[in-house]
Amino acid sequence: MSEALLASITCPGDLKRLTTEQLTQLAAEIRDFLVAKVSRTGGHLGPNLGVVETTLAMHRVFDSPRDRLLFDTGHQAYVHKILTGRQDGFDLLRQRGGLSGYPSRAESEHDLIENSHASTALSYADGLSKAFALRGEERHTVAVVGDGALTGGMCWEALNNIASAKNRLVIVVNDNGRSYAPTIGGLADHLSTLRLNPGYERVLDLVKNALGSTPVVGKPAYEVLHAVKKGIKDAVSPQPMFEDLGIKYIGPIDGHDLVAMESALRRAKGYNAPVIVHAVTRKGFGYRPAETDEADRLHGPSSAFDVETGKLLAKPSVKWTHVFADELVKIADERVDVVGITAAMAEPTGIAKLAAKYPDRAYDVGIAEQHAATSAAGLAMGGLHPVVAVYATFLNRAFDQVLLDVAMHELPVTFVLDRAGITGPDGPSHYGIWDMSVFGVVPGLRIAAPRDAATLREELREAIAVDDGPTIVRFPTGSVAEDTPAVRRAGQVDVLREDSLAGGRKDVLLVAVGAFARLGLEVADRLAEQGYGVTVVDPRWVRPVPIELIGLAGQHRRVVTLEDGVRAGGVGDAVASALRDSGVDVPLRDFGVPVGFHPHGSRAEILTALGLTAQDIARDVTEWVSRVDEAVEAAQTTR
Amino acid sequence: MSEALLASITCPGDLKRLTTEQLTQLAAEIRDFLVAKVSRTGGHLGPNLGVVETTLAMHRVFDSPRDRLLFDTGHQAYVHKILTGRQDGFDLLRQRGGLSGYPSRAESEHDLIENSHASTALSYADGLSKAFALRGEERHTVAVVGDGALTGGMCWEALNNIASAKNRLVIVVNDNGRSYAPTIGGLADHLSTLRLNPGYERVLDLVKNALGSTPVVGKPAYEVLHAVKKGIKDAVSPQPMFEDLGIKYIGPIDGHDLVAMESALRRAKGYNAPVIVHAVTRKGFGYRPAETDEADRLHGPSSAFDVETGKLLAKPSVKWTHVFADELVKIADERVDVVGITAAMAEPTGIAKLAAKYPDRAYDVGIAEQHAATSAAGLAMGGLHPVVAVYATFLNRAFDQVLLDVAMHELPVTFVLDRAGITGPDGPSHYGIWDMSVFGVVPGLRIAAPRDAATLREELREAIAVDDGPTIVRFPTGSVAEDTPAVRRAGQVDVLREDSLAGGRKDVLLVAVGAFARLGLEVADRLAEQGYGVTVVDPRWVRPVPIELIGLAGQHRRVVTLEDGVRAGGVGDAVASALRDSGVDVPLRDFGVPVGFHPHGSRAEILTALGLTAQDIARDVTEWVSRVDEAVEAAQTTR
Repeated sequence: MSEALLASITCPGDLKRLTTEQLTQLAAEIRDFLVAKVSRTGGHLGPNLGVVETTLAMHRVFDSPRDRLLFDTGHQAYVHKILTGRQDGFDLLRQRGGLSGYPSRAESEHDLIENSHASTALSYADGLSKAFALRGEERHTVAVVGDGALTGGMCWEALNNIASAKNRLVIVVNDNGRSYAPTIGGLADHLSTLRLNPGYERVLDLVKNALGSTPVVGKPAYEVLHAVKKGIKDAVSPQPMFEDLGIKYIGPIDGHDLVAMESALRRAKGYNAPVIVHAVTRKGFGYRPAETDEADRLHGPSSAFDVETGKLLAKPSVKWTHVFADELVKIADERVDVVGITAAMAEPTGIAKLAAKYPDRAYDVGIAEQHAATSAAGLAMGGLHPVVAVYATFLNRAFDQVLLDVAMHELPVTFVLDRAGITGPDGPSHYGIWDMSVFGVVPGLRIAAPRDAATLREELREAIAVDDGPTIVRFPTGSVAEDTPAVRRAGQVDVLREDSLAGGRKDVLLVAVGAFARLGLEVADRLAEQGYGVTVVDPRWVRPVPIELIGLAGQHRRVVTLEDGVRAGGVGDAVASALRDSGVDVPLRDFGVPVGFHPHGSRAEILTALGLTAQDIARDVTEWVSRVDEAVEAAQTTR
Repeated sequence: MSEALLASITCPGDLKRLTTEQLTQLAAEIRDFLVAKVSRTGGHLGPNLGVVETTLAMHRVFDSPRDRLLFDTGHQAYVHKILTGRQDGFDLLRQRGGLSGYPSRAESEHDLIENSHASTALSYADGLSKAFALRGEERHTVAVVGDGALTGGMCWEALNNIASAKNRLVIVVNDNGRSYAPTIGGLADHLSTLRLNPGYERVLDLVKNALGSTPVVGKPAYEVLHAVKKGIKDAVSPQPMFEDLGIKYIGPIDGHDLVAMESALRRAKGYNAPVIVHAVTRKGFGYRPAETDEADRLHGPSSAFDVETGKLLAKPSVKWTHVFADELVKIADERVDVVGITAAMAEPTGIAKLAAKYPDRAYDVGIAEQHAATSAAGLAMGGLHPVVAVYATFLNRAFDQVLLDVAMHELPVTFVLDRAGITGPDGPSHYGIWDMSVFGVVPGLRIAAPRDAATLREELREAIAVDDGPTIVRFPTGSVAEDTPAVRRAGQVDVLREDSLAGGRKDVLLVAVGAFARLGLEVADRLAEQGYGVTVVDPRWVRPVPIELIGLAGQHRRVVTLEDGVRAGGVGDAVASALRDSGVDVPLRDFGVPVGFHPHGSRAEILTALGLTAQDIARDVTEWVSRVDEAVEAAQTTR
């Protein structure tokens, strides 16, 4: 057996000349490659180990990029990247300037969807296949979607339309029973039933016995298999749920049986109509630490790990998530009406800790943020106080539900937004930079941005104490920021630094939001070196704008705001608006994330690239303050 | 037969003592009442005529408000309002200070959900039933959802969770085959199959024959019917799609057969587990003009209509929608790549006109805004230019899809937002006031707000000419505004008025967005009477802020912005931010809709209540300008 088979694959066309034996070897090499690379860089592992054969089969049966291969949740596209000429890129996977962790049009003509939010691929596929049909192009669209993603409502909307349009479209349901966490809900039970169908098991055994350990090589064995597998399909019977919708169903197929997968896909391709191929796979297949990984830490290890044991090498540290999870359990101990909701993210959001202690009081709704928000509204109408914990980027999917279903009804629901702000290696679709702008328009919604562990605990409690409307508590990714005690509290606002210059002169009020408190203090140090008197405050609650900020602004000659969110409509704009409305005419300059889709990299790298460092901000503020001073002076002289 | 039965019903309890004969009479009286009232005020008619028996049965079988009755899309709750003591309110239906067109907690303890966006009720119901279960309260939750609303993904998310939670919950699927327009998609085909099931027809005939024309009175007949209907259920067989998910299914039931509906609901109630009751109804049932209303104009007549003919009495006028629809067809004549998408709103958004001429180039995706956006992304990836026409309030449901699926991929998709701004009688959940703020943060998205028919045509063409990213064209409800020609164009910006005062003095730059152009000119008239020199501009494209606005602002002493959208993060904030970034230090005051959920009423009434009249704005601007002038003067004197 050559070990260099993988190195010879530079494009999908190279796969077509391989024998089944070679393909089996290639699959093994790909798994070794994935484990070796991801163990050094971190990234998504389990999902990619699970789709090796699926991806190989897709690239053999279809003709990318003429045919379009779409991966729902792009983190399962590593094998696709490997097969489309990007093996070299894996050394810098998810690093600034290196390979993206998701498909990327800039990297390859084989990539189309850069999105990494789940449940969207079938909608793209519906549009693509309609476009091909309308333009008379005989091209195939193939979408791979996990069983977890099927719990998202968009998939239902798409299936309904796909069934109706009857275009050339193959949907591969990659069913491992746990796309993120174990998939929940009625759909999951239904899929389990299909998997446990005795017909399926029986025919699988039959296949195994018939083929024994004989190597399956070349075309004749193919035909045999094809026929046998066709038998499976009939034995298992048509699957009503999908066929009721008018979509053909092939399956379940052993998704790690390359020949079976290829045969199923060829049949699906031949229909020239919507077909679901139901592939049963095992997450982490072929790498024991990932296969046996109950807590699913090898779904997407955040750092390098030990190949032998699967244990992460990064030194464990206290994360923002841990502080939240611990405090939520304490609050739940005290208040029986507090319940938790997660959208298929119990471990990563910390809701698992609540669920472990109070299993009846934690709900995992699947990858279904809209339902998370509106079922929380229902829970609140029923007298409970739900805490919905999601990544900041994902709450965007429930804007309308937060606005109308929760806020319009003045319901006490607390949304906890983890991974807010610039997150890093996952890139633009995971940046949690929109929340303070988008949810800033929601009437009656209060938004807190804690700066450290103590304020996270405190503001979480304040949020859950609110009983007449929704609250958001948002914090960044990673290790919790070092403690930053206040020198005093002015109303709702924490004063972190307060210079006393001669004559009580106060030059700059620096409003630092949440985890940017430390950055604000560093900027203040630099401004103080230039002789400015600086006050640094953490508003704690950024929406509505605390009244105390207006008063403080009026005592200063300039206001500067710093936020880990997009500038448009953000805290800076809100403070400026509040100052205008109050007739406080103090010049303001706001620093935040520029409107744009920013590339992946480490959080520090991205912040540096965006000019959000103490050095850059202090320089800009100094230039601005002196320019404004000169302008005012000039105006006073000439008038 | 008494004609005053309806008058004697003041609460649901009054229904429980009625005989079947009396209930039949009551149903007829309710229909007469609905037609008489809505023919004078406008409002939703067809859907309410279709749920008369369903609502009566629900209130007889369940005990509201202890049991919770939820109406998905609240516009089908009129009968519920009639039965819960609000008959008197119908004279002022949807008028300022009068009865809401949707459930309203302020009106009645029987109302819970004020939302009128479709597909949400099952999620509320899931939360409510979980809360009741957790608190050990034996209360029932009943949700009525239309077959059209089932095309929305939230329903799927909710069903999946409801099946899994196994709580006490009854889902009434009110299946008229056309919740708004004819329901589309695979689901609709499946429901049609159920309806056409010969078993169903056969047993219905059996029932008719058995009962003949004998009046059905009192309890014994009930029992007979119950038994027969039970037979129907078994004859028709369990319905796999729902039962696969683990939700019991009863149906299909003739939704206009009160006794059958009541029997089905009693059985459903007895299960103490999730049950779907599939009621087949006819929209507009019992009122011929509504039953035969192919164009569905009596779904929600916007004005009074003639009871005999069903014809609207309002003088037809040219609406914004018509101008858009006509121009879109012209553009489609010229460009074969232009296609249309609607979310179950082909008639109200004008896409029907495109569909009539080019049936292959218009897609109705169901009540599925998320899919509308992302399938549009797919269409654009396939080389087409999709025009997605929805109400402004509904695009909020697809924020994440517009942000990541469309904008991040820089795809040329044009979103046409009808009913933008304050819309009026439908109240807070239909106000299209969020779009310029929420979508204002989307990188690369350009937003146009035309001021009249000519600019709508022009800006629509400009939008569809953009090939490197998404565009929005937004306009209000109702008759198109009168033509307001520009005196000149400065770059992208139309100058509508330009005063020349002595010495070239320019006092106020008034930036009037879209249909507020006319308001801006009226404000300018009043300011000019006070001796101010005013320039009025229509920016035409409000995002990104046109560079020309900055230059113009620099030539004036003050800037005033006027927009038909929420102030937070709106055009005013964006212009202020652009001025700060450019170092143009001209004081600005922004007028727009205050952040809040504003009540229903006519558009003019609401705008007046919000102070968005020429008189109020001119007064505020005059006070502000003179106050700022004084402050500047005082500062110059004291320094």
